[in-house]
Amino acid sequence: MLPQSIEWISERKILKLLDQRKLPGEVAFSLCKNSEDIAQAIENMTVRGAPAIGVAAAYGTVLAALEGRQAFFAAVERLSATRPTAVHLFWTLEKMKKCAAETPDSEIYAALEKKAAELLNEDIEINRAIGKYGADLLPDNAEVITHCNAGAIATCGYGTALGVLRAAREQGKRIKIYADETRPRLQGARLTAWELLEDGFDVTLITDSMAAFLMSQRKIDAVLVGADRVARNGDTANKIGTYSLAVAAKHHKVPFYAAVPFSTIDTDCEDGSRIPIEERSIEEVVKINGKLAAPEGVKVWNPAFDVTPAELIDGIITEKGVVRVPCDLKNLWRKQNEN
Amino acid sequence: MLPQSIEWISERKILKLLDQRKLPGEVAFSLCKNSEDIAQAIENMTVRGAPAIGVAAAYGTVLAALEGRQAFFAAVERLSATRPTAVHLFWTLEKMKKCAAETPDSEIYAALEKKAAELLNEDIEINRAIGKYGADLLPDNAEVITHCNAGAIATCGYGTALGVLRAAREQGKRIKIYADETRPRLQGARLTAWELLEDGFDVTLITDSMAAFLMSQRKIDAVLVGADRVARNGDTANKIGTYSLAVAAKHHKVPFYAAVPFSTIDTDCEDGSRIPIEERSIEEVVKINGKLAAPEGVKVWNPAFDVTPAELIDGIITEKGVVRVPCDLKNLWRKQNEN
Repeated sequence: MLPQSIEWISERKILKLLDQRKLPGEVAFSLCKNSEDIAQAIENMTVRGAPAIGVAAAYGTVLAALEGRQAFFAAVERLSATRPTAVHLFWTLEKMKKCAAETPDSEIYAALEKKAAELLNEDIEINRAIGKYGADLLPDNAEVITHCNAGAIATCGYGTALGVLRAAREQGKRIKIYADETRPRLQGARLTAWELLEDGFDVTLITDSMAAFLMSQRKIDAVLVGADRVARNGDTANKIGTYSLAVAAKHHKVPFYAAVPFSTIDTDCEDGSRIPIEERSIEEVVKINGKLAAPEGVKVWNPAFDVTPAELIDGIITEKGVVRVPCDLKNLWRKQNEN
Repeated sequence: MLPQSIEWISERKILKLLDQRKLPGEVAFSLCKNSEDIAQAIENMTVRGAPAIGVAAAYGTVLAALEGRQAFFAAVERLSATRPTAVHLFWTLEKMKKCAAETPDSEIYAALEKKAAELLNEDIEINRAIGKYGADLLPDNAEVITHCNAGAIATCGYGTALGVLRAAREQGKRIKIYADETRPRLQGARLTAWELLEDGFDVTLITDSMAAFLMSQRKIDAVLVGADRVARNGDTANKIGTYSLAVAAKHHKVPFYAAVPFSTIDTDCEDGSRIPIEERSIEEVVKINGKLAAPEGVKVWNPAFDVTPAELIDGIITEKGVVRVPCDLKNLWRKQNEN
């Protein structure tokens, strides 16, 4: 059975986080008693995935509010600094600040606690809606390739790309999943294979380099991934290796979908060329399981993610429906806001 | 400086093999004093790469011949069994048997020693010829992606795909190489990055999933790989991940070349569909550096190699010249044999 990634124990004033660093070997939990515990859990990757991090940080501010408004603001500062580029984290903390601003001191803890619970439940509801729209795209007996972990444990539950698989199963469809191991950090092997196995799915692990050959050998019905950021023309940034998968999918005429909360679509970002590519440490590539797998002193190129252009994407699955790209997502956004 | 992968020390009657299991951490050698030492070195992967294995086995028969003709035949049997599917190994042992059959008992050791030396030198000459033809395909300041290890240490020296890079450098061209790490066995990280670094090349290590994105970010001039077997229509079997690279190369209009001795072209094999795909152990994927990186009990698909269809290959670089595919290699072979 799959444990919850994030759980608020109201009577004990504790946030219980699934310790993702120890997966798949060990299912352990970290009990956070104050905002500093949560800040460290974000920094050391006990908790990962933008939605899960956002809600964990929200509860960090709740715990700080126990010590008053000043402690609350200090916690917002501290938590903001844990991931200096995490847009979703800032968005969440802004919501908490707004809530605090509208509440008298005597009620601040209760109001923030309620707000955090709302954000948590909202995330799960969004994932379920994404799942429903995505599931309609899959046939019975579907064979699907996924990359990295866009699952229940990256969110507050259910997941985005993996939520689509859950919804398809709830529709009575049989699903076979191939999980890319996702070098260099192996989230596919460590997290996705574990999450799907725990949840009773038929999952097969492959190395990233096998996905294209798999498409040539079997009828694959879809590639399903999550995303970190979608530009308004549909260009999509996601874990490194996503682009390679999209190119292979196009070559084999396999539909390629990214499943994301609508908030991931950055309407201020014109196209993929505006998305900066973060390069991570050499260590991630040359050291595996603590041991050097390459000669000392070798140069390494280690982009954390890549950008898949809209023309390789058959649809962006959101809680508002499936957006076919390339199209002007900004116009769609405006139209929806006008309604 | 790059050590020799295989060296015969005539006066001591010893075959000195670079122990490739210990790379890149340690440059160690295995001194083989009899044919059984060599059989074990092949089995335990001290020596790897079809040409290197073939010549090592040839010297195994030389050492056995010290004890007479009967010991020679027993060694041929024993060495044949080390790699039951290695076509090149059998071909080499046939040459040694023919040499033994044509030689009186008193001269058998000297004759076999001479024959083995011929095979070793011939392999290096073939690689140099491949290198020359291949180098002509590369511009100055070329940026090249390679996969697995088709280098000096997989052969008796110089290498096939990496031999092309050496020849280009000898022509005065500047070359920048990106080496795929080549999961699951990491030959790119462990061997190619090491070999090129030792030999003073400008080499950058990437994970396999980064190659396609790299092609979208930089002007890559060629993808250069070796091959295990080429069918007569040009379909090419090579290390898993080669096909993914070929698909990405086609998408980005990057020329894709396989560099092989002409003997690798199997004129009896009509096309790639006739090449059986060996599946290797689950362990190779789930255990990295001795530690489990995936949940216990997960299913794994682990094909050892893949087949790249001829239409994705811009040329097969051989010691007889560059064969443009798709074309009927069998006809070419016949024509060349008639001349």
